[in-house]
Amino acid sequence: MSSRRVLIANRGEIALRIVRACHHLGLEAVAAHSDADASARWVELADDAVRLGGSPAAKSYLDVDAVLRAADESGADAVHPGYGFLAENADFARRVREAGLVFIGPSPEVIERMGDKAAARRTAQEAGVPVVPGSAALTDPSQAADAAAEVGFPLLVKAAAGGGGRGIRPVSDAAELAGVLSTAQAEAGAAFGDGTVYLERLVPRARHVEVQVLADQQGNVVHAFERDCSVQRRRQKLIEEAPAPGLAPETRRAMTEAAARLAEHVGYLGAGTVEFLLGPDGEFFFIEMNTRIQVEHPITECVTGVDLVTEQLRVAAGEPLSARQEEIELRGAAIELRINAEDPEQDFRPSPGDLVAFDPPGGPGVRVETGFAAGDRISPFYDSMIAKLICWAPTRSEAIARARQALTELRVDGVPSTTSLHAELLDDAEFVAGEVHTSWLENR
Amino acid sequence: MSSRRVLIANRGEIALRIVRACHHLGLEAVAAHSDADASARWVELADDAVRLGGSPAAKSYLDVDAVLRAADESGADAVHPGYGFLAENADFARRVREAGLVFIGPSPEVIERMGDKAAARRTAQEAGVPVVPGSAALTDPSQAADAAAEVGFPLLVKAAAGGGGRGIRPVSDAAELAGVLSTAQAEAGAAFGDGTVYLERLVPRARHVEVQVLADQQGNVVHAFERDCSVQRRRQKLIEEAPAPGLAPETRRAMTEAAARLAEHVGYLGAGTVEFLLGPDGEFFFIEMNTRIQVEHPITECVTGVDLVTEQLRVAAGEPLSARQEEIELRGAAIELRINAEDPEQDFRPSPGDLVAFDPPGGPGVRVETGFAAGDRISPFYDSMIAKLICWAPTRSEAIARARQALTELRVDGVPSTTSLHAELLDDAEFVAGEVHTSWLENR
Repeated sequence: MSSRRVLIANRGEIALRIVRACHHLGLEAVAAHSDADASARWVELADDAVRLGGSPAAKSYLDVDAVLRAADESGADAVHPGYGFLAENADFARRVREAGLVFIGPSPEVIERMGDKAAARRTAQEAGVPVVPGSAALTDPSQAADAAAEVGFPLLVKAAAGGGGRGIRPVSDAAELAGVLSTAQAEAGAAFGDGTVYLERLVPRARHVEVQVLADQQGNVVHAFERDCSVQRRRQKLIEEAPAPGLAPETRRAMTEAAARLAEHVGYLGAGTVEFLLGPDGEFFFIEMNTRIQVEHPITECVTGVDLVTEQLRVAAGEPLSARQEEIELRGAAIELRINAEDPEQDFRPSPGDLVAFDPPGGPGVRVETGFAAGDRISPFYDSMIAKLICWAPTRSEAIARARQALTELRVDGVPSTTSLHAELLDDAEFVAGEVHTSWLENR
Repeated sequence: MSSRRVLIANRGEIALRIVRACHHLGLEAVAAHSDADASARWVELADDAVRLGGSPAAKSYLDVDAVLRAADESGADAVHPGYGFLAENADFARRVREAGLVFIGPSPEVIERMGDKAAARRTAQEAGVPVVPGSAALTDPSQAADAAAEVGFPLLVKAAAGGGGRGIRPVSDAAELAGVLSTAQAEAGAAFGDGTVYLERLVPRARHVEVQVLADQQGNVVHAFERDCSVQRRRQKLIEEAPAPGLAPETRRAMTEAAARLAEHVGYLGAGTVEFLLGPDGEFFFIEMNTRIQVEHPITECVTGVDLVTEQLRVAAGEPLSARQEEIELRGAAIELRINAEDPEQDFRPSPGDLVAFDPPGGPGVRVETGFAAGDRISPFYDSMIAKLICWAPTRSEAIARARQALTELRVDGVPSTTSLHAELLDDAEFVAGEVHTSWLENR
């Protein structure tokens, strides 16, 4: 493999995940870290470490110059951006490339194209992938009224530069439209530096189903089936599963083929995720493409046996994907629980603090991904995730049973966590029956 | 399932493994524990707990009356013996049955028959399973000389009532025979209360390969392929892998068929292991059958997806096995490392003590089985095992890479451990090439 030393421009569990993948392939991993993370577990387990800057993300994990400097100082020849932070920043990918380094992900042009939600919609349409009825980018309210009538109510106002569930507002009828629109534009301008918004039909009781794709420099494009991420709160995923419960085989085939077709159409490289809304009648619509590894990637790894992060590294180094489409088969079911340091007594407000005790669960089918160990601090500077618990079993109901047991075994002392909410959800009759949709948890 | 409440007559990681399997099937698990284990992790995670007696095993886990009393007191209707302790004690199995409870294992008659090594040999021969050239039970030295000449040198003197590598002595030539024989007889009498010994050919450079079998009350008998447990020290297994590296497909077929045939011949029930010596030329010989779950069972679970302990519970409750032979397929490779509290500086003497810190490894393909958490005590009363690290990957070399990474991540503070020895073995060129045999580690 031409790349021998990979700079990890991220933190927490995904940073350790990348360390593991590097070592799996005999590569060296360099942890680029903030001051708050100087003695973190993944930094210690990496082969080398280099300081980015102060603790706030803006001064470290989001500082393009600092990351490039770190790559240079540490002699890295490739950069893995993880997820979040700079992972979908086309300028960053371009700067990495211009510095003569390998960016582990697709080209800046693809990131840019899929990162602009309106451009992504057009691209999906070109590739023959169904999209939710929606409008072009809007500027004034009069335009909006006509566009809304065409899209139909209920609808969503979405920031073109948004993502991860941010910059989205619902509109139930025409009377609400003008007010929501101006609020959304102002918010988008403040949050993303770009006030452009567009409209999209709201599909009621829709599930969030996403397809994992992989593509190499030899032109091979495969999918690794789908994940159902319908259990969301404030548009943040809380539980994910693979495969999607109750998905009709013909829907699975159509959806996975559509995702692979889109990846091929844009000349995708590496691991990516094509997100769809799935209506109760089996109709599905493209939402967006995430041009990076996803938080919930381990459930796909558990049901397919494909190591997605290792594939990212291989592909970036110019090697072909290690599996052909016909070799990627579904086996069993997997479920992921995101254990966050959030306080159930205080409306799940992030509650950073010291992880006084941390005993992860174990046993058959149980996988733990965390960047922390007992004694570590969950820092207020970053997201509140403590760990991901991933449980695999031959069937979905057994995977749920294992997840219940894993929660019983998990011990988190020192910070409040989402454990109790997860335990409740795993016992919920609708969840157990697979009858959930993206508004289910908030309506509950 | 008729059984609803299972008494666990064991401790440590296997006790927690059984708790998990019970919960997987919606059964209640009762931890029967000694005083030393009163606040152990698996006791806390069980649904109920009942005291057996004092800390020494003889007063708790080996006390048949105490275990039966515990089963009665706790309202259990089945008893899982785990491995070691009373797991292969036919009288115990009989007493359990006489008390109107289900013994989770084969019948007392089968335990007895396979537990007597000479009877087991005869049984294997009846079933058409090849055995190592060996003698009948011996009493006086003159008999022994003739028997030894027939068996051929080098040979082993083995205690008929031995097991787990105990009660075995090598003899390289005729001159040594008489002396070793009388020592072995005296030792066997002292250790097992039965001085009966027999002779067995020593197969040089043999590997220890064992086949997992499963049988139900409906008459179904299947195998779940083999494990290679050749890396041993003082006849105790240290590293196990599945499948056996480099095993020729025809040898695998013959060996697994032989194991299933033996299980069928004796009317086996539940999970059992048929152990073979495999010579360098592919010839294999029956050694013994273990009529219980094996320490190294998780590697089989990882490569087949079959949950062996859950199958034990199902079968004991009268349900059929959940998989037919043709559904049990090998996928990838798994390796297990036994992390023991033993001091590498002191010839690996057991070194119990307080587990001050314990951070298990995580990530893809990594499974941890332990009965302990940070803050627990590794008691001097029992074996020195802290945890089993099990690593799965699509190929053997990747599984070894993951095991190396897992060892790097593992943190054990407070007691010395076998971690450094494992790290060394995983880097050994002969081990990596799969060129090891049962004397390899001691000759190294």
